[in-house]
Amino acid sequence: MDAKRSVESLTVMTEIVLPNDTNVFGNLMGGRLMYWMDIAAAIAAQKHCNAPVVTASVDNISFENPVKLGNVVHIEAKVTRSFNTSMEIHMKVWGEDLTQQFKYKSNEAYYTFVALDPNRKPRPVPQLVVETEEEKKLFDGALRRRQLRLILGGKMKPDDAVELKALFVKD
Amino acid sequence: MDAKRSVESLTVMTEIVLPNDTNVFGNLMGGRLMYWMDIAAAIAAQKHCNAPVVTASVDNISFENPVKLGNVVHIEAKVTRSFNTSMEIHMKVWGEDLTQQFKYKSNEAYYTFVALDPNRKPRPVPQLVVETEEEKKLFDGALRRRQLRLILGGKMKPDDAVELKALFVKD
Amino acid sequence: MDAKRSVESLTVMTEIVLPNDTNVFGNLMGGRLMYWMDIAAAIAAQKHCNAPVVTASVDNISFENPVKLGNVVHIEAKVTRSFNTSMEIHMKVWGEDLTQQFKYKSNEAYYTFVALDPNRKPRPVPQLVVETEEEKKLFDGALRRRQLRLILGGKMKPDDAVELKALFVKD
Amino acid sequence: MDAKRSVESLTVMTEIVLPNDTNVFGNLMGGRLMYWMDIAAAIAAQKHCNAPVVTASVDNISFENPVKLGNVVHIEAKVTRSFNTSMEIHMKVWGEDLTQQFKYKSNEAYYTFVALDPNRKPRPVPQLVVETEEEKKLFDGALRRRQLRLILGGKMKPDDAVELKALFVKD
Amino acid sequence: MDAKRSVESLTVMTEIVLPNDTNVFGNLMGGRLMYWMDIAAAIAAQKHCNAPVVTASVDNISFENPVKLGNVVHIEAKVTRSFNTSMEIHMKVWGEDLTQQFKYKSNEAYYTFVALDPNRKPRPVPQLVVETEEEKKLFDGALRRRQLRLILGGKMKPDDAVELKALFVKD
Amino acid sequence: MDAKRSVESLTVMTEIVLPNDTNVFGNLMGGRLMYWMDIAAAIAAQKHCNAPVVTASVDNISFENPVKLGNVVHIEAKVTRSFNTSMEIHMKVWGEDLTQQFKYKSNEAYYTFVALDPNRKPRPVPQLVVETEEEKKLFDGALRRRQLRLILGGKMKPDDAVELKALFVKD
Repeated sequence: MDAKRSVESLTVMTEIVLPNDTNVFGNLMGGRLMYWMDIAAAIAAQKHCNAPVVTASVDNISFENPVKLGNVVHIEAKVTRSFNTSMEIHMKVWGEDLTQQFKYKSNEAYYTFVALDPNRKPRPVPQLVVETEEEKKLFDGALRRRQLRLILGGKMKPDDAVELKALFVKD
Repeated sequence: MDAKRSVESLTVMTEIVLPNDTNVFGNLMGGRLMYWMDIAAAIAAQKHCNAPVVTASVDNISFENPVKLGNVVHIEAKVTRSFNTSMEIHMKVWGEDLTQQFKYKSNEAYYTFVALDPNRKPRPVPQLVVETEEEKKLFDGALRRRQLRLILGGKMKPDDAVELKALFVKD
Repeated sequence: MDAKRSVESLTVMTEIVLPNDTNVFGNLMGGRLMYWMDIAAAIAAQKHCNAPVVTASVDNISFENPVKLGNVVHIEAKVTRSFNTSMEIHMKVWGEDLTQQFKYKSNEAYYTFVALDPNRKPRPVPQLVVETEEEKKLFDGALRRRQLRLILGGKMKPDDAVELKALFVKD
Repeated sequence: MDAKRSVESLTVMTEIVLPNDTNVFGNLMGGRLMYWMDIAAAIAAQKHCNAPVVTASVDNISFENPVKLGNVVHIEAKVTRSFNTSMEIHMKVWGEDLTQQFKYKSNEAYYTFVALDPNRKPRPVPQLVVETEEEKKLFDGALRRRQLRLILGGKMKPDDAVELKALFVKD
Repeated sequence: MDAKRSVESLTVMTEIVLPNDTNVFGNLMGGRLMYWMDIAAAIAAQKHCNAPVVTASVDNISFENPVKLGNVVHIEAKVTRSFNTSMEIHMKVWGEDLTQQFKYKSNEAYYTFVALDPNRKPRPVPQLVVETEEEKKLFDGALRRRQLRLILGGKMKPDDAVELKALFVKD
Repeated sequence: MDAKRSVESLTVMTEIVLPNDTNVFGNLMGGRLMYWMDIAAAIAAQKHCNAPVVTASVDNISFENPVKLGNVVHIEAKVTRSFNTSMEIHMKVWGEDLTQQFKYKSNEAYYTFVALDPNRKPRPVPQLVVETEEEKKLFDGALRRRQLRLILGGKMKPDDAVELKALFVKD
């Protein structure tokens, strides 16, 4: 199983906000956006591992600007790091009002997917090769985010999260 | 503005997993579930503040068991703590195979909503009164989760997150 | 096959009225509501019989108040009586404007479901145990409603509908 | 306001059963069908009164044969009688397996709609002119069905339902 | 395989334009209409060949008038000519504002479908019998349209398109 | 109004084929694909003119390979030429089976959009600057395709379609 480059998983999704995607303010509902992001990230993960995948976890998402009815939603998804059988996907999400030529950030997020074999058991995924500075930074941070996920999921003790702990404890 | 009890915001949502909600394994897609959870949590938040709300953030979610086509999804949402203009909502999500009489946990999650006035500006929300042991525990943890959200959102330095830091640094 | 209590089938469904659910007045379309009710009732029926079910019939429904865009729809479904292979489900449906703290009745309805075996043939369902006064009243009325269904479906002659006839003929 | 002929309101709707319309048996869900019927009937009612309409009530529906995935659903809707501000719509619904050249009845139903003026108040609708034998029979039965609706809706006493009572009491 | 009359394939579809079908002007999106037309045409094709069909091609469509939110869409589809394994379907599409009693043309279009056998290979379809003047005209034009399709699809040289060429070259 | 480069309108859309997008063979329905293409093309057109747009026409589309359930759909849309108030958009559409690492062409198509001012009247759009060989070829062909559209729409006589005529008549 050959390693793959981060850029090979790049997935670009573009959508228009339609009436049924909006709340009473005419703004895109957070849940609808997370649905689109799940599909974009799943495609990026499949591009990396060439196998079916399932969503294992979603990291904290903070919505910064409302996306309005009729505006365009841009999602860019890319694998940041692969573990044994799982992959972390980073997404940048922004809105765009094409009439006013105004672009604005919605959020940035990390989803984690697990690759499955035909018996629905986790299967190994290729290693990731990172090239740009941004890819390296995302790759390095992936370990810290994984520790946070394990702690929050009750599968790791805070004391064992060496990478994460360094954020709070400076010698 | 009178304080409200946690139980007053309790929202119960029940759905059946239909074909278009599923991936190629016939399991509920994570994104579709987050969409339903967003609606359940938004209703719980509105029950508390009696005002329109928007999703501000979503905390880490870890999906534990797949929910199958034709199975029932149960979502229970309740306000855990209110801040000035925002509310944290806790959700328990489980699946159920009624034919096999088999219930299983899908995930548990925290969404945060902001209440808006008619000009779409944040508006104050009522204080929360907690009663049961579980409600108290969720209320206390809310501060720690809020610090984590602020750090992850780049709005607080790890050093200032007193509650959260205590997890990693034991004197 | 042990008898089951009515309360074991209680199903609570909560939805928000979105743009595509509404007519040109911005009110929930009757057909969309009947769709949600069908799903809520099917879940209640499956809770009782632990088998797949299909909708056999729907009794008269009268819509009393329009449910508005952005309002919440509450559906409570419960088995009222089981026959050999079928179950009658009673539903209470009301709307709620959470901003104005205003609750209003939409309708109350009876759907009937048939339980199926793996060959898609009707299969026996458990007996129902009723406990509260309301449950007893619904249980008693179920026979009369069933006679009406059979007459309207051309499967019973009015003369044989003893329960129902008593409504019109007082000696 | 000129009277209108029954045939002027004839509405023909044709749909294909898609995966998301079906239950675990691959059969059309009753609720989805009632949704389509609501739209077909609303169009027929609007053809008659040339005004917006809302669903007032739905009469007993009995589903006779399952409609399968990929099959065609045919709905024919026509006004049977108009009252002051409301119209009764009759529908015939059947399925068709075009590959096997097999047509089968699903159900036949009555929906009632009320016409609204721009202030959302009920407004008068044109009288109906019936021409064929079938139209006359449906027109005559409309009074009896209306009495049943009023009784079931708690707005008429069984004793006053002269037309309906005759079904049960033969002198 | 007996020839079939054109009228046997007549398919009438009626829909209401709902919020999610519209753009920011409240007009039906072209793509949504083409989706409905695809289903109407597929049903007409199946009526003719009594076999599953897939969309092979769509001819030029020119949208003449916008269809507004809440208006009715009428689609009439009919087979115009059958070739070995394919059928050309003609559709007339118009909108109607029932409140204003105003009907207007949206477009007219030709879709081509191929019939498939259980192994998903093209299979022969019945010949078409045309009866009315309009049916004959559509039947004759089908050959010219087919040549245009083949040229545009790169499967025929303009020089060989005798029927089509006659339009441009008059001796 | 400054001219714009073709590449500025490039729009990339990525979707997964879900159950409700498929026919009984589990293949993407043509109508569903045309719906996605309409949205992708509308975004490309809006990127060019920074104004709301409506679909004016769709050129012949020929579907070459079926796209299967669970496969990815890629759509790339770009403006090829602008006229006074309208823009021609070219799209390449292909499917991809990520598990089998197999990419295949679905179709290539041209949609035409008109830009509208706030009164819903056509408004001028910027000129297009083409740079690559492919862009130039598409730009040149646009005139011929436009003539074909006008002839097929009954707005031009074949004799006046100089560009198009040259295809059939070689001196």
